[in-house]
Amino acid sequence: MPNLSENFKFKLEALQNRARAGIFYTPHGPLLTPAFAPVGTQATVKAVTPDQLEELGASLILSNTYHLYLRPGDEVVAQMGGLHRFMNWPRPMLTDSGGYQVFSLANTRKVDEDGVTFKSHIDGAAHRFTPEKSVKIQENLGADIIMAFDECAPPYDRQYNERAVIRTHAWAERSIAAKTRSDQALFGIVQGGIFPDLRRKSVEFLVQLDFPGYAIGGLSVGETKPEMHSMLEVVDPLLPKNKPRYLMGVGAPEDLVNGVLRGVDIFDCVLPTRLARHNAALTRTDRLNLVNASYAHDPNPIDIHCACYTCQNFSRAYLRHLINAKEMLAATLLSIHNLHTLLQLMREIRQAIFEKRFDQYAHEFLSNRS
Amino acid sequence: MPNLSENFKFKLEALQNRARAGIFYTPHGPLLTPAFAPVGTQATVKAVTPDQLEELGASLILSNTYHLYLRPGDEVVAQMGGLHRFMNWPRPMLTDSGGYQVFSLANTRKVDEDGVTFKSHIDGAAHRFTPEKSVKIQENLGADIIMAFDECAPPYDRQYNERAVIRTHAWAERSIAAKTRSDQALFGIVQGGIFPDLRRKSVEFLVQLDFPGYAIGGLSVGETKPEMHSMLEVVDPLLPKNKPRYLMGVGAPEDLVNGVLRGVDIFDCVLPTRLARHNAALTRTDRLNLVNASYAHDPNPIDIHCACYTCQNFSRAYLRHLINAKEMLAATLLSIHNLHTLLQLMREIRQAIFEKRFDQYAHEFLSNRS
Repeated sequence: MPNLSENFKFKLEALQNRARAGIFYTPHGPLLTPAFAPVGTQATVKAVTPDQLEELGASLILSNTYHLYLRPGDEVVAQMGGLHRFMNWPRPMLTDSGGYQVFSLANTRKVDEDGVTFKSHIDGAAHRFTPEKSVKIQENLGADIIMAFDECAPPYDRQYNERAVIRTHAWAERSIAAKTRSDQALFGIVQGGIFPDLRRKSVEFLVQLDFPGYAIGGLSVGETKPEMHSMLEVVDPLLPKNKPRYLMGVGAPEDLVNGVLRGVDIFDCVLPTRLARHNAALTRTDRLNLVNASYAHDPNPIDIHCACYTCQNFSRAYLRHLINAKEMLAATLLSIHNLHTLLQLMREIRQAIFEKRFDQYAHEFLSNRS
Repeated sequence: MPNLSENFKFKLEALQNRARAGIFYTPHGPLLTPAFAPVGTQATVKAVTPDQLEELGASLILSNTYHLYLRPGDEVVAQMGGLHRFMNWPRPMLTDSGGYQVFSLANTRKVDEDGVTFKSHIDGAAHRFTPEKSVKIQENLGADIIMAFDECAPPYDRQYNERAVIRTHAWAERSIAAKTRSDQALFGIVQGGIFPDLRRKSVEFLVQLDFPGYAIGGLSVGETKPEMHSMLEVVDPLLPKNKPRYLMGVGAPEDLVNGVLRGVDIFDCVLPTRLARHNAALTRTDRLNLVNASYAHDPNPIDIHCACYTCQNFSRAYLRHLINAKEMLAATLLSIHNLHTLLQLMREIRQAIFEKRFDQYAHEFLSNRS
């Protein structure tokens, strides 16, 4: 049983420069950070079972408010005992606010100061999200970590970002006011595009509201890597040390290392499972496209040093055959490998921070990327 | 390690009327009979991993010669160490002869006394199978149990069946002559449609050739259930007691029970995994279509008495959501449940034969089917 009095405390265990190793306590157990969260958009991490995720050592799983609100409906999930029970994930869970999906997936959206009206990408039906509605849906879903409703603006549009930051701040206050459950931690979301002054303003405002954790939104949405790194360096010293920081939607191996180097604790991304469904394997140094004819007679695993179920048992030739034969097992085995690659990377990073050798680890890792 | 001197011996352990419980020894371990073999057409049982199959207690797996010959090619499989290693299945395997698939799947086939010329259903390229070629492919694949090349005729066509039986017998002799590997058991295939005299003639001819096991082909291909049962009753007393009998392509729960009642030891069928991909769950008494709106708020598992991973962890409401959301996990969880249902049924049947209560078990099972 988790110690409930410790819920949502963040314990920093080791530091090296900006890099942090810690534990975030949740009602579904401790989350060891830095952590990568696989994404289960529709209450399933695509192509893998919860048993397989558990074997991979996954801890935090993200699920999407926008998708679950539309299908099967957050009230159905609540009736079925909440998201943990519905999808059979007994460890920590996180839901986003739905804001990003409304802006990126829904049709004909209309934003006003009160909220967003949009049409479902499934059937075109009209819906409306407000901060209050987003919190209500997330309370029905019941994840351990929930997000304040925010507006994610195009990264280079100064005027749009100025307005979006103001709106995001008002919505953050309304999200706090709407929250009723004590077993969920509500995180505020820092916006501000690629503009250091807006990012600073956003952090300073949100920190006053004393959230139990802070998400960094609006990155990995079109800006360059140096711009992303620069924004992380702007917010790192302003965010409280004793609260977790979550960089939303980031998950390429080099981005995880670069994020931890700049003070990030939590990441999520569809990349490992999406690449798997497009026949690509992530390795420590590269990406392999397993459709390539050169693998037709290749008896080696994806990565000879990898300890995952896929690499311990299956050849590249077999994986290529499954892909060509359009067999579902291809997506499952590649998802297992890609998730293992990122989860194992995070375990190594955490260990390296404890042992004060993460700077060197990061330097070597980044120099070996092809 | 299996005792290699016992390879392909069949030990009858218990009998009740026609029903038999035994052990068939193979180079990849003993096969406890009666047994149901899940089908891995393209060197994968669709939507499940070998680990999941092992957890389900699967033993014999069937794979298809026609499919693997076309893709990835039997020589590729041989180079990768054979089918067991290629697909990572360490237990007994069986390949069919390719005959049935050529007749049911390939385009523009032409049969002559020497073999069959056909066009691939994948790319239309011309290929030719003969008994010698079928054995050669099956030796490259390396399953423990392989099949003589045969011709499966429409069940009600007397003249066609007369010709097909003669051809199947000639091909059985040529298959024996072509075989070179001592670590594979070649089974002969009884044909003869729904005609008792042809079935008798076929068994008598093949038994002379002293195969280590006998397949019963050409059933479950359009004839009625009583006709299928009647053919099994014709061949049962003529087949040697000390050799396993394999009823090809049969796998509905009631057909398994009816087959064992009539002396069958081994079955295979795509039914459990195919139904799973069409959203249907097999239970002991029924089939459920999980798309049904009545399951939208149903917190119960598919079958409250079922011990499978799916029923132990997931509600009908969740499975219906996965199906509606077109998530691959639906096929995986339904395949696990359907395979468990049939594998568990076979374990119970075997136990009932040992305990001399299979007649009663079968009677109750068949009366409860809806």
